[in-house]
Amino acid sequence: MPSSQQATTSVAVLGCGLIGESWSALFLAHGLDVAAWDPDGGVLAALPQRVEPLLAQLRALGHTAARPGRLSVAQSVAAAVGGAAWIQENAPENTAVKHGLYAEVEAAAAADAVIASSTSSLTWTDLAAGVTRRDRLITAHPFNPPHLMPLVELFADNAQTLERAETFYRGLGRVTVALRKDAVGHIANRLASALWREAVNIVAEGIADVADVDAALVHGPGLRWSVIGSHMAYHLGGGPGGIAHYLDHLGPSQERRWATLGTPSLTPEVRRLLIDGIAQEAAGRSIATLEAERDRGLMLALAARRKAGEGECP
Amino acid sequence: MPSSQQATTSVAVLGCGLIGESWSALFLAHGLDVAAWDPDGGVLAALPQRVEPLLAQLRALGHTAARPGRLSVAQSVAAAVGGAAWIQENAPENTAVKHGLYAEVEAAAAADAVIASSTSSLTWTDLAAGVTRRDRLITAHPFNPPHLMPLVELFADNAQTLERAETFYRGLGRVTVALRKDAVGHIANRLASALWREAVNIVAEGIADVADVDAALVHGPGLRWSVIGSHMAYHLGGGPGGIAHYLDHLGPSQERRWATLGTPSLTPEVRRLLIDGIAQEAAGRSIATLEAERDRGLMLALAARRKAGEGECP
Repeated sequence: MPSSQQATTSVAVLGCGLIGESWSALFLAHGLDVAAWDPDGGVLAALPQRVEPLLAQLRALGHTAARPGRLSVAQSVAAAVGGAAWIQENAPENTAVKHGLYAEVEAAAAADAVIASSTSSLTWTDLAAGVTRRDRLITAHPFNPPHLMPLVELFADNAQTLERAETFYRGLGRVTVALRKDAVGHIANRLASALWREAVNIVAEGIADVADVDAALVHGPGLRWSVIGSHMAYHLGGGPGGIAHYLDHLGPSQERRWATLGTPSLTPEVRRLLIDGIAQEAAGRSIATLEAERDRGLMLALAARRKAGEGECP
Repeated sequence: MPSSQQATTSVAVLGCGLIGESWSALFLAHGLDVAAWDPDGGVLAALPQRVEPLLAQLRALGHTAARPGRLSVAQSVAAAVGGAAWIQENAPENTAVKHGLYAEVEAAAAADAVIASSTSSLTWTDLAAGVTRRDRLITAHPFNPPHLMPLVELFADNAQTLERAETFYRGLGRVTVALRKDAVGHIANRLASALWREAVNIVAEGIADVADVDAALVHGPGLRWSVIGSHMAYHLGGGPGGIAHYLDHLGPSQERRWATLGTPSLTPEVRRLLIDGIAQEAAGRSIATLEAERDRGLMLALAARRKAGEGECP
């Protein structure tokens, strides 16, 4: 097997859908060479063109390496991973498919290459059942789109692999969090799922419609949570006594409110309310237009964060 | 009773704690005269000084009226509300206290003055039991701090009062959402409570610690929800088929995940984990420092939104 003891300068991207193309752009913008593979030849051939607008977004955000990485498309898994120090796997969320892919990877990859899975819904334990070298497998779940969203959630049972991952993703300007315990949905999607359940409930109960629930989130807690976390918000909500005071005085009322939160089901009626509500909120804007608006908002928010990091005031 | 048929140019602020002082700054910055009252003479006397830094924040954000409003402190409820077209009530979250205050307000206020309650945990129905003129009572719940956070959640059973409130708060640069049905926690605090329940569960279950849960939120879903809402995020998560495709293909997995979300209790052990976790996250920063950092982050985020509204790119 080839060696890749040098610093990570080349990455294999396996699976070039939305997640894979976004990862590719991030790697390239930071000067890493990318060897990409996808079972769909058409998807693979279109990749160089599809990463261009993402690279332009990253340049606008100031992510410009002295030497941009080179993108090559590989005709096999073996060809993609042969020279790679890092393997970012973005295959479909299907354990058997991923296990099959890992067998090909393990046959061709350098002994010390890390296999990082972008899985959002499977666990490390699910995936580890399909590799011989569990010590170099890690789940590295990005938040979509990975080239813009800073978060990468990590779980590995090998401390050295975890540390390598933290160094690797932080070097790409990402913010990593490490789970102490393998969990379905990692952290962020568990939080998102819990919030959406109540967002669905509010619509199902007729308290407010889809567009107003979304507006309340964006202009209220969403804005706040882009700056401070939920736990910290309650710490500040406790006044000078902080979280301890909050728990003493408002903990019981939170527990009472928890008991009133809904447990909706996605019945045909609820699905209809959600679909009609989104149509009203979108007001004729296509998915592509909505995505472009989202990305533009994200880029402005990220630029504001960079200013915050540099100590500027508005 | 005096008349206030003219456009709203003078506001009474009843209760001058954190919410009242923040509202006062917002009103003054938009050229409205404020007559403030608080049962605590010390709190009231300090108000003019306490609004100054908040006014400076609003000036930095470009909220500068041609003629700034005048702030006067009133020695009685009657004196505060006598000349007011709008009455913003920020009394303690206690139905009897608010009802007692409303009796004083109704005895002295103009017949067409609106009584808007900032209540976060009581409902319009709770409050309406204590007024003779229910048609001019509205709940107008801001997200803390009101002078920075755009959201105001409204509920009234009178369409004209609701419309007046929408005009009034939008004129102050706020984003209003109207509940279709009176509900405890309105929209935003129900969402926040649902998310925090799972955030507490993740800590209680040992999946991740407080600081990592907060970091995952701020750099993942929080950032996203500052730009698009939860429903819209799943619409975009469905690819070209949007929310309908999402519900068809991932609805069942969301329902399965909902079933795995936790229902923690704030036991002494969990409280200890939260308090210790916040201490670790705060890393010696005082509440005042953390609040200043939050406000600075919010101001940068709000400045970025203004740019987005003006069509600028980063």
